[in-house]
Amino acid sequence: MNLSEPCRAPDPAMEAAARARQACLTKPPGSLGALESAAIRLAALQGTPQPALDTVWISIFAGDHGVAAEGVSAFPQVVTGEMVRNFAGGGAAISVLARELGARLEVVNLGTVNDPGEIAGVRRAIIAASTANFCVEPAMTQAQLQAALDAGADSVRAARAAGAQLFVGGEMGIANTTAASALGCALLGESPASLSGAGTGLDAAGVAHKAQVIARALARHAAVDTPLERLRCLGGFEIAALAGAYVAAAQAGLPALVDGFISSVAALAAVRINPACRDWLLFSHRSQERGHARVLAALAAEPLIDLGLRLGEGSGAAIAVPLLRLACALHNRMATFEQAGVSGA
Amino acid sequence: MNLSEPCRAPDPAMEAAARARQACLTKPPGSLGALESAAIRLAALQGTPQPALDTVWISIFAGDHGVAAEGVSAFPQVVTGEMVRNFAGGGAAISVLARELGARLEVVNLGTVNDPGEIAGVRRAIIAASTANFCVEPAMTQAQLQAALDAGADSVRAARAAGAQLFVGGEMGIANTTAASALGCALLGESPASLSGAGTGLDAAGVAHKAQVIARALARHAAVDTPLERLRCLGGFEIAALAGAYVAAAQAGLPALVDGFISSVAALAAVRINPACRDWLLFSHRSQERGHARVLAALAAEPLIDLGLRLGEGSGAAIAVPLLRLACALHNRMATFEQAGVSGA
Repeated sequence: MNLSEPCRAPDPAMEAAARARQACLTKPPGSLGALESAAIRLAALQGTPQPALDTVWISIFAGDHGVAAEGVSAFPQVVTGEMVRNFAGGGAAISVLARELGARLEVVNLGTVNDPGEIAGVRRAIIAASTANFCVEPAMTQAQLQAALDAGADSVRAARAAGAQLFVGGEMGIANTTAASALGCALLGESPASLSGAGTGLDAAGVAHKAQVIARALARHAAVDTPLERLRCLGGFEIAALAGAYVAAAQAGLPALVDGFISSVAALAAVRINPACRDWLLFSHRSQERGHARVLAALAAEPLIDLGLRLGEGSGAAIAVPLLRLACALHNRMATFEQAGVSGA
Repeated sequence: MNLSEPCRAPDPAMEAAARARQACLTKPPGSLGALESAAIRLAALQGTPQPALDTVWISIFAGDHGVAAEGVSAFPQVVTGEMVRNFAGGGAAISVLARELGARLEVVNLGTVNDPGEIAGVRRAIIAASTANFCVEPAMTQAQLQAALDAGADSVRAARAAGAQLFVGGEMGIANTTAASALGCALLGESPASLSGAGTGLDAAGVAHKAQVIARALARHAAVDTPLERLRCLGGFEIAALAGAYVAAAQAGLPALVDGFISSVAALAAVRINPACRDWLLFSHRSQERGHARVLAALAAEPLIDLGLRLGEGSGAAIAVPLLRLACALHNRMATFEQAGVSGA
């Protein structure tokens, strides 16, 4: 993919039409709050006065991380490959959510230390068994970074071919909150402590150790000064794939719903690489992972929900999909004051 | 109905079983946040290890308010009756939401100044054209209060007969944020200013006038000292019906999902009248109406969503239903670590 290709522009006429319609519906103006804004935004992005999210595509990118060797996760590294099997087998949270939503779930294996092999429902796009330990060397080579970006863009292409009206990205990779925190620190100029959280369940000592590991990584790559190089040196295969997907979605004019902390850092990288892609990103939830609030603020993002989620896998985004669907239904199907014969204020 | 009949008790064994199951599912412990708590709570309330919300019942209670004569609403009083027609006709927000959820929608007309007459889909339980102006006299007589409470209990009975797994109550009545604020002030010992908000769209001067009207009402009924009498003197037909429904639901062992400010004040009245009913109340959203946060705090309620909603009609509760359904689906259908062959922490 070519990251610098221009993004599509939202449609201001459809936005205005949707805003005008909201003002005529039988409710006090503004009383549906964030659901009104969401419907108006989707109208602008989808270029239609009747936005819809009947067809939702979910891609989960999995990849292992060299930095796991530093002991930064509460779970062993084999879990990444095991979870790839669980995603495809239907037992993971995102598998259940995709079924409930009637969404298409694509699982993309970008490289796991514990390779589950060929599995029905898993797209193999293996880059390597894992990234390199970024405390020692760049996480990815140039070619690996490009392969990961391309894998994300490939998923967006498949989503479009399937008629998707919304792209949801998710990630899985033991130690990937460490990579996301390191990348977030580099992109935002923040301290490791401010963006280091419990991940899958570290205690306070574990979080402190994680922050020290991130500090070493930032020192190792202190000379790096572009967003793309920061992504290469400190990111992961799945984080780069998400960043590539977000840019590709914006280039194709497909709205993308961002999940939690790791996805938001990928979104931040995407926006720093190609700022116009920000228009196409919707934000689903505020996670419990420390650092998410800071990343959301940097993106001027106002997520729909705040349920104390911290699972990843695209799960928080999937959980928010019904709210966006209801926003569309209300927008499209409520009666106007005139139609219903209801008096105005 | 008899408000003092005991409420059912949640099932502690099912709660423990659900909590144990959550700990075995393939996710970091606690990582589904409020959705885990919701599933555990529903298991305890429904008395089953597999909680479900396939069958949802929504009752909307409509009634007019004598205090509308004090000029406390941005909309004219005829709108209450006009909206009854809109609810049944399918054009209101709650009508759209009920269809999207596949929920049964019952509209109950308790008395409107602009009577829409017999309409298919509307249950007529007319008490009077409106309550009395509570700045001058009690809003309801004893017989009117009992009729309103009974109307709420009747809806719960119908919901149970239809096999409902969740009861959602909603309200409509021009000037009913004034009644709810007055009742909330009396129940909580708060000042009118602290619980008076914009309702359907008052400006600052309108809100100040509303607070003065509430202050007059509180002075008029200062001698009243029981929650039930406060409900009678300062409430409304639809507020009393909701309170009756919440108590009846708890007596029958049916979980109820509470909507916004007005519903929450009705819930507060219900809890003050029969405290054990609190166990059966789930809270859906934090509304933008000033005063809601105070009422929620008094109920120790932690709503699921905060989307800047301020419509009423049960709409915020309906919008939260998909989140509870996903909580149940995740709880019931995710694989355990053992089933999926995934390593633990």
